Amino acid sequence: MHVYIEDIGTHVGEQITIKGWLHNRRSSGKIHFLILRDGTGFIQAVMSKAGVGDEMFKAADHLSQETSVVVTGTARADQRAPGGYEIDVAELEVIGESHDYPITPKEHGVDYLLDRRHLWIRSERQHAILRVRHEIINAVRDFFNVRGFILADTPIFTPAACEGTTTLFPAQYFEDQTAYLTQSGQLYNEANAMALGRVYCFGPTFRAEKSKTRRHLTEFWMVEPEMAYADLNDVMDLAEALVVSIVGRVIDRRRRELKAIERDLSKLESVKAPFPRVSYDEAVKILKEKGLPFEWGGDFGAPDETTLSEQYDRPVMVHRYPAAVKGFYMKPDPAHPNLALNVDVLAPEGYGEIIGGSERLADLDLLLERIKEHHLPQEAFEWYIDLRRYGTVPHGGFGMGIERVVAWICGLEHVRETIPYPRMLYRLYP
Amino acid sequence: MHVYIEDIGTHVGEQITIKGWLHNRRSSGKIHFLILRDGTGFIQAVMSKAGVGDEMFKAADHLSQETSVVVTGTARADQRAPGGYEIDVAELEVIGESHDYPITPKEHGVDYLLDRRHLWIRSERQHAILRVRHEIINAVRDFFNVRGFILADTPIFTPAACEGTTTLFPAQYFEDQTAYLTQSGQLYNEANAMALGRVYCFGPTFRAEKSKTRRHLTEFWMVEPEMAYADLNDVMDLAEALVVSIVGRVIDRRRRELKAIERDLSKLESVKAPFPRVSYDEAVKILKEKGLPFEWGGDFGAPDETTLSEQYDRPVMVHRYPAAVKGFYMKPDPAHPNLALNVDVLAPEGYGEIIGGSERLADLDLLLERIKEHHLPQEAFEWYIDLRRYGTVPHGGFGMGIERVVAWICGLEHVRETIPYPRMLYRLYP
Repeated sequence: MHVYIEDIGTHVGEQITIKGWLHNRRSSGKIHFLILRDGTGFIQAVMSKAGVGDEMFKAADHLSQETSVVVTGTARADQRAPGGYEIDVAELEVIGESHDYPITPKEHGVDYLLDRRHLWIRSERQHAILRVRHEIINAVRDFFNVRGFILADTPIFTPAACEGTTTLFPAQYFEDQTAYLTQSGQLYNEANAMALGRVYCFGPTFRAEKSKTRRHLTEFWMVEPEMAYADLNDVMDLAEALVVSIVGRVIDRRRRELKAIERDLSKLESVKAPFPRVSYDEAVKILKEKGLPFEWGGDFGAPDETTLSEQYDRPVMVHRYPAAVKGFYMKPDPAHPNLALNVDVLAPEGYGEIIGGSERLADLDLLLERIKEHHLPQEAFEWYIDLRRYGTVPHGGFGMGIERVVAWICGLEHVRETIPYPRMLYRLYP
Repeated sequence: MHVYIEDIGTHVGEQITIKGWLHNRRSSGKIHFLILRDGTGFIQAVMSKAGVGDEMFKAADHLSQETSVVVTGTARADQRAPGGYEIDVAELEVIGESHDYPITPKEHGVDYLLDRRHLWIRSERQHAILRVRHEIINAVRDFFNVRGFILADTPIFTPAACEGTTTLFPAQYFEDQTAYLTQSGQLYNEANAMALGRVYCFGPTFRAEKSKTRRHLTEFWMVEPEMAYADLNDVMDLAEALVVSIVGRVIDRRRRELKAIERDLSKLESVKAPFPRVSYDEAVKILKEKGLPFEWGGDFGAPDETTLSEQYDRPVMVHRYPAAVKGFYMKPDPAHPNLALNVDVLAPEGYGEIIGGSERLADLDLLLERIKEHHLPQEAFEWYIDLRRYGTVPHGGFGMGIERVVAWICGLEHVRETIPYPRMLYRLYP
């Protein structure tokens, strides 16, 4: 009976079959210890000469890394085993050979590994990260679905830019047109929220940024909720609840994977509501106190975000930035019209911004003014302006970058390990 | 207390507040009947002159379609009401006005409506379709998640084509490179299945097809599962179970929406396992018997698929097509090497192909041969070939186009209504 390694606990004492690959092995004179993997986990299979006979034992002598094998044997609980179980092998069949597998237990450079990303993902560490990514994405979707948000996909091909065109990828759309790849579904989300109340989109977004930092990919996934009849406080409450929910679920369901990548769980366990809510003004004060050369009025750079986030044991929400450095679509603070009703959520441990959101500008006249001030072509935004002409309502939402959340929750140095096939300035292969 | 219309059944007799828009209204001398919508549903609010006083009653006299309003009143069960409930209005506040809303209850042409798609989605019918789409997508994700499949996102930017380049959209990737927008995540899925066992990807895919048919969009969403250690029968079993699961869940949870779009539920209720499994050879016989001028050897066209699918009350699985008309990556049938071990699932009622899948070619030498025969650049596929060099295993999977499934389940004539912002040959706006 074919059993997945992750389910083996319910088959102790039974004769089962594992279909997978040889991850590693060592041998003593009369016993082979074979570490098998099947995509759901890793397990040690113990093959003794006495148990399988001389011929099969000898055949297993030269099995090399990543040979695909079907192993039949008896599942056994073993407290010393990392997963708690082992298999006593009765039979082993080689399905596909593997000669000179290029990724060995020794150290390889990151470019070497990225060139072989299709194989690198078989490693215990990369495998664990991708399973955590899977859990994070499902936690996000469940969070919105149980709250009655409707998934409404926004287009990838867009005719105009959300915020300028310098970081847009152009695509040739048949002979004579140019379509730009989306940087954000937000403007469409706003239209969808007016139709469906509370919505989210969740898809790939694109940014043609030439910076080679550890926080940037050219292609990354973003979830963006948007709510009709909501203000900045609702946006902050939602962001906080989302992050708490994700972290809690990953701790709950992916403890084994977090352990495999040696994540310090105590850091994640302190991620609880309420998150500190700090105004931009207060944040600037903190930076100055810490000796950073930051002047009021600018957006925070990566070192500023790192310093701010290091002040807290959980994410911090920084709100009300100078309107001048933020998007044209943000509502100004009625109490201080030079400030925007926006929020950035900075992850702890120096991971920086993971969420950016705001209450949107719902007033028709003010929006028209802003579009002019920003030198945007009004015609391209007529449909967006329509939302203020026909039953405008206060509304708001945010965007959360999945790769940055994965990097933070897994404790990774670089976002390139957070997605199966990272796309960067000089990387399109494989 | 703010309540969403879909939750009103749990607040009968209470004073509640609805935040939404005026969808429609009619008045008799002393009563206004206001149809409100808030994105979660529609409800009639009854405002009597006696109940709200002359002034407020008169103010509501001229409320126009899509005015945003906050209405407070008492929820009341009413068997005659479409949703089963009504509200007796105590107070009404106008949030945003709406003058000359461009989509009226009269008939509009489809181009007129598509130009106003950001408003059209507020209509009862479009709103219902998008909610069914949401349910279908979540049914798909839950199906794979509960079975232990891992979501592994495949890249949008790809360096080479899966099957030729004529229908690819090129994107300028920084100064000097061209990236192609993905048509399928399959090849990457195969690598991911070797790492994670059972995987799926679910994202937008792109096809630069100039055909203006009712089945084609240039940008559409596709889910693609892939399983290691699986053969064609496993692929067919999985496809069948998925479709049954989706249809059952939509009937179960979106009955109100299906009723709003007047879908014949009996057609959906017959979608039960087992689906007929018909070989290509048998399918050709059926077409000839029906008088279609079809010759053995070609792929089916839309009229052929329509005729075939009309023979059954549920989806039909057609398997083992001539290898010559199918992808280079499909395993040939050992019994008849001129046939591919593939399957297409055709939806009933003439909706045609919704799923295409196969067992993949796992043999290294045969794959190298095929790549030559198809004049593909071997270098670009080296990483894919690696999967056969290092522990190859039998494996297979399929792709299912979401928009076609939505069109079929909702009984729509054209896929353009299945996604919030359809992208077609001449349509990039809004």
